[in-house]
Amino acid sequence: MKPVWWEDNYLYFIDQRCLPLDLVIEKTRDYRVVAKAIKELAIRGAPAIGIAAAYALVLAILNGDDLDEAVKVLKGTRPTAVNLFWAINRMLSLPEKVFELFLEEAKNIEREDEEMNLDIATLGSSLIPFNSAVLTHCNAGGLATSGYGTALGIIKKAWEEGRVVEVIVDETRPLLQGSRLTAWELQEAGIPYKVITDNTAGFMMELSRVSAVVVGADRISSNGDVANKIGTCSLAVLADKFDIPFIVAAPTSSFDWKIRSGKEIPIEQRDEEEVLSFRDIRVAPLDAKAINFAFDVTPAELITAIVCEAGILRPPFITAGL
Amino acid sequence: MKPVWWEDNYLYFIDQRCLPLDLVIEKTRDYRVVAKAIKELAIRGAPAIGIAAAYALVLAILNGDDLDEAVKVLKGTRPTAVNLFWAINRMLSLPEKVFELFLEEAKNIEREDEEMNLDIATLGSSLIPFNSAVLTHCNAGGLATSGYGTALGIIKKAWEEGRVVEVIVDETRPLLQGSRLTAWELQEAGIPYKVITDNTAGFMMELSRVSAVVVGADRISSNGDVANKIGTCSLAVLADKFDIPFIVAAPTSSFDWKIRSGKEIPIEQRDEEEVLSFRDIRVAPLDAKAINFAFDVTPAELITAIVCEAGILRPPFITAGL
Repeated sequence: MKPVWWEDNYLYFIDQRCLPLDLVIEKTRDYRVVAKAIKELAIRGAPAIGIAAAYALVLAILNGDDLDEAVKVLKGTRPTAVNLFWAINRMLSLPEKVFELFLEEAKNIEREDEEMNLDIATLGSSLIPFNSAVLTHCNAGGLATSGYGTALGIIKKAWEEGRVVEVIVDETRPLLQGSRLTAWELQEAGIPYKVITDNTAGFMMELSRVSAVVVGADRISSNGDVANKIGTCSLAVLADKFDIPFIVAAPTSSFDWKIRSGKEIPIEQRDEEEVLSFRDIRVAPLDAKAINFAFDVTPAELITAIVCEAGILRPPFITAGL
Repeated sequence: MKPVWWEDNYLYFIDQRCLPLDLVIEKTRDYRVVAKAIKELAIRGAPAIGIAAAYALVLAILNGDDLDEAVKVLKGTRPTAVNLFWAINRMLSLPEKVFELFLEEAKNIEREDEEMNLDIATLGSSLIPFNSAVLTHCNAGGLATSGYGTALGIIKKAWEEGRVVEVIVDETRPLLQGSRLTAWELQEAGIPYKVITDNTAGFMMELSRVSAVVVGADRISSNGDVANKIGTCSLAVLADKFDIPFIVAAPTSSFDWKIRSGKEIPIEQRDEEEVLSFRDIRVAPLDAKAINFAFDVTPAELITAIVCEAGILRPPFITAGL
């Protein structure tokens, strides 16, 4: 199951907000619909956003839309996901702005992501001890990529190899990508899992019920600091405290060599309502305020390994240029 | 505002499940209603549970119910809260099982809790630096006690003294006692606060936006290990990592001198549905499983100070007998 795919000159995508109970598939020929889907998290996950943005530009060309305007709208959707900018810039670097070339390049981006996912899975699985309970956060699975996954790809591969006996799924507040999406993918793949609230992870580690943590990344600075879904930094501190390997999985397109440390990564703050309400049910006083960082930054020194399609990087990451 | 009070031979209590949007007050003369309210978290928080259980026994006497049965039903509601057992045993140690004596003792338990709260607040506030942003977890406030609070009592007092400029409120999944109850109490008290998801606490600390963490306790072993709402252990590890004082507030009735370490504290596991659904909206696949620890254990070595009405205890706690 892919989160985004091209068929008969339409872009199809799963509206991930409706999972796990409803599998809603949208079909569009309007790049604005894709941009809105990215902004509102119907399409999410750094690689999937990149793929969707590439196809959105194909739609813009197909419709004869103003390409500069389309680029501007798409770049404005999610400031943290470097793949978004990477995919758009790659499309724009094509010698001619014509439909066939654009479509071919978007398909290349998608296919390369598939290949990278499999390479990451194979490399990363070797880091998972046999009989592991692996904890993952948010969704870095097929829904976040071209269909297989980065962090969850490693876990799927490690399950096939008999290394994983159980997956511990952080529910991942506020939007519950763990309990909604990762749980759904694991269910589809027949892999045993248990959902926990995010605040249970530390106690699970204290009880020795977590063998490894595997997470994705939205952006990695050149020193190895990792921006990923809010809560990742806490997990890395906890894993360090309880001597548990902390593995980050991401394609090399997630690296941003221009920035030297995580301090330079812009962190998206999202609407307070995501925290203060749940599906239109208010769960805080009417005048309440919230802080809603979508991402956080995990310092490189807390990361055991970063797995990308080019290999397994280990600290100090600054010397490990690809 | 008290969570539980006696008036005209009825027990009144706030159904805390309806907060923050609705203030629902229940009135009962049946101890079974109180037991059900404790079990279903309409009444929650270790000291408030103790007070409610004491009054429930007064109701049992008033109605001529079988006292042994009432004790059994009440003790079966929440296995972790040592105050529940402490309050019931204190009631049972009265020389005569008569209404007037029982009522007087229940009122004593309530009044002593009020005095302890104020002592804890005064002692604990001295530990809070001026201009602090204080993070708290779950609700250890007036709703969890006789009306003022332990952890939140310290924060209220520190606010009055100008030490606290902002409270960071962990929403506290799965039942959101932070965003629902602590936020409501702070709103009522006019103290500025911001709600965060539990998984945001680590990043807030990394950003130096938390000056101190103050939490309550459901049970404390003789070596200083603390059982408290799930997520507390993670906060203690994070506070330790980022050099932030981690303060536990609890009356001495929360100490269980018979147990030597947190490993001996029974940890209540609650219904998986609390994690997998939100107010009857399913947020995970239909076949999903969850692990739902209600509490966790924070190792004593991660605790900066335990504030009780008798004084401020500092590690190593084993030598600090009260």
